[in-house]
Amino acid sequence: MDIEAYMQQLGANARTASRAMARAGTDTKNQALHAIAEVLDGERQPLAMANKRDMDNARKNGLEAALLDRLELTSGRIDGMIEGLEQVAALPDPVGEISDMNYRPSGIQVGKMRVPLGVVGIIYESRPNVTVEAASLCLKSGNATILRGGSEAIHSNQAIATCIKRGLQSAGLTGDAVQVIETTDRAAVGKLVTMSEFVDVIVPRGGKGLIERISREARVPVIKHLHGVCHVYIDGQADLDKAHNIAFNAKTHRYGVCNAMETLLVAESVAESILPSLAASYTEAGVNMRGCEAAKNIIITTGFPCEAASEDDWHEEYLAHVLAIRVVKGVDAAIEHINMYGSQHTDAIVTENYSIGRRFLNEVDSSSVMINASTRFADGFEYGLGAEIGISTDKIHARGPVGLDGLTSQKYIVLGDGHIRE
Amino acid sequence: MDIEAYMQQLGANARTASRAMARAGTDTKNQALHAIAEVLDGERQPLAMANKRDMDNARKNGLEAALLDRLELTSGRIDGMIEGLEQVAALPDPVGEISDMNYRPSGIQVGKMRVPLGVVGIIYESRPNVTVEAASLCLKSGNATILRGGSEAIHSNQAIATCIKRGLQSAGLTGDAVQVIETTDRAAVGKLVTMSEFVDVIVPRGGKGLIERISREARVPVIKHLHGVCHVYIDGQADLDKAHNIAFNAKTHRYGVCNAMETLLVAESVAESILPSLAASYTEAGVNMRGCEAAKNIIITTGFPCEAASEDDWHEEYLAHVLAIRVVKGVDAAIEHINMYGSQHTDAIVTENYSIGRRFLNEVDSSSVMINASTRFADGFEYGLGAEIGISTDKIHARGPVGLDGLTSQKYIVLGDGHIRE
Repeated sequence: MDIEAYMQQLGANARTASRAMARAGTDTKNQALHAIAEVLDGERQPLAMANKRDMDNARKNGLEAALLDRLELTSGRIDGMIEGLEQVAALPDPVGEISDMNYRPSGIQVGKMRVPLGVVGIIYESRPNVTVEAASLCLKSGNATILRGGSEAIHSNQAIATCIKRGLQSAGLTGDAVQVIETTDRAAVGKLVTMSEFVDVIVPRGGKGLIERISREARVPVIKHLHGVCHVYIDGQADLDKAHNIAFNAKTHRYGVCNAMETLLVAESVAESILPSLAASYTEAGVNMRGCEAAKNIIITTGFPCEAASEDDWHEEYLAHVLAIRVVKGVDAAIEHINMYGSQHTDAIVTENYSIGRRFLNEVDSSSVMINASTRFADGFEYGLGAEIGISTDKIHARGPVGLDGLTSQKYIVLGDGHIRE
Repeated sequence: MDIEAYMQQLGANARTASRAMARAGTDTKNQALHAIAEVLDGERQPLAMANKRDMDNARKNGLEAALLDRLELTSGRIDGMIEGLEQVAALPDPVGEISDMNYRPSGIQVGKMRVPLGVVGIIYESRPNVTVEAASLCLKSGNATILRGGSEAIHSNQAIATCIKRGLQSAGLTGDAVQVIETTDRAAVGKLVTMSEFVDVIVPRGGKGLIERISREARVPVIKHLHGVCHVYIDGQADLDKAHNIAFNAKTHRYGVCNAMETLLVAESVAESILPSLAASYTEAGVNMRGCEAAKNIIITTGFPCEAASEDDWHEEYLAHVLAIRVVKGVDAAIEHINMYGSQHTDAIVTENYSIGRRFLNEVDSSSVMINASTRFADGFEYGLGAEIGISTDKIHARGPVGLDGLTSQKYIVLGDGHIRE
């Protein structure tokens, strides 16, 4: 297979399809979403067979259990895909929204119109359900998509791609609106992220290594979610009950997620009041604590285990039953720590003090900044976006949870009546 | 000079300064802008001397007249810089603007806060007045800036940099908020556009060659303005008086600007009615026409000169007294031509037909799309942005004229009362 020529063709198809998708009406796009759901429902048998091939190969190759679990297309996951399609169909269509129309002194009327980005390339791990999720969000936002899932899922993804194509065509849309790369050759990714004539943006979903590599190679803009080193800072004027609940929830509600707290910062004035009870809760939940000198002393004195944190711990995204704890002087030191060691993902303060809360909100440079709420709320669904293609830790374009709007841009529109510039 | 270490230091300084700038109040930033204006006003003599060194060198090196003109810091240009600073001070501060705050079913309140991008790198040609213009916009939007002007302007830029630093410091801000690169070594640019740990976005201003090179080398997101191949399409249902005025204004109001029309498209049903009078006006204005077969026939038959356009002409940004003209079947062909040959900058239709206008507005994929108005209106000041750092032909982040808002991003803010995720 000539990867270069193959990808070039995929790109050209996508560019052409993107023009048709930009013109497609809301109703047509929703019909396609419903149709894809129907086809998937009718093709459960072939989907299961394709997935079995992938699962068998993966087991043969010794894929670890957690990854095998993600690869599996259970009947429940197919239900989930179908439900997701219906949910995306029910979301408002962002395309064509006109805002800020104002008359200017020259007499022209100027405003903005929301339009699709064009062609979106999505690179993700071996999770077949992501194929449908990503395709549906791009479809609804009027984009053409080129999808590249992990190589272990190749047969599942091809089977899903066939269903998507049939659904698109039955709604009168071109099957090229969603293309799944048919080769597992790594060179295809290299080409995808550099075809700036055909691809408008790349959304990589996956581990830090994957995303760093793609950012390095890309010539196309990347909406990236690098990692989540999230903090909760318990201020000296925190309500200690709220502080306990939030600090416990942010760490223990789920461990393997990017919006879980990785470092707890505690003001020195309340460290002795709050750390003993928190240490008890964490220990009970099986969380291993790594503290700065002061934190460690308090925790160990209380009778709970705590290791010494090293400089590296402040940078770490554990995604596990591990928590770094640091006692800081106050809000200034907390903000400084977060801006220095954090990953600009999600950070929260617990405080009852108005001015301190306001400062934290203004000065912490992260995609989500919270007062008296768990970092676990940083999520497209919790924020009311209705869906989420990822969480961006970038500063330009979309920041934080990225929904349908993040897959669009705004162009200027100007209405005149023969106006010329004098 | 160790360029690597020098740039590393500049980057670290800028990152630190960006935190202070993000915290700076509107009043402080405005004070700094006024103070810089005052210092510039008081330092006219040293500025003129520094500029004379640059001008002398440039003449010795045989710089062409147009570039010498841009390099010169006349007294009028210094007035213009001062006036620009006062204007930016008068603009509303975008930083801290909170929007879309809504309660979610979970009880948290979610919205967005506008924040500075952080560190903005600006690379531009040998135009010293741009140093002040770029610095002032970044300052007002709460960013730290690293500026790299063309090497011919090095002494002028250093003199201006000293004034800016004094102004910043007199308002209590750090002089590192605006740093002008002190070396003309090209390696400094290579380093600037790859220091993603210190620089959040690069804005290159200048010729297509410069921008393409920077886009190729950059590891930092680039807000780029590539080129402007702008079209006016005169529809079969155009008001021919409006069409004449707009098509003439869009080409002849100014030639060397990116929003000037480069290709005129005319519906075949009105080509014979409108092209003769337009050809007369263009010929009188000294515009050389290059037409497709049909356009050329009409123009030559009328008695005006017209060369044959080649395929290359449809791609060309002349920035000169040259115009490509093509007769097309109707709005479909016009949209197809624009989306194929255009540069997604600015395109206009002249029509009285509601449905045709609406289609053009929806389907032309450019940063500014206009009905019955001259492409020359695509400009930050005409759009009411108050200022303009450039015009983006990119699709993500900022599209079209980029003002203060384009130098900011929005982070999510969440207000709770001890809320945790269940």
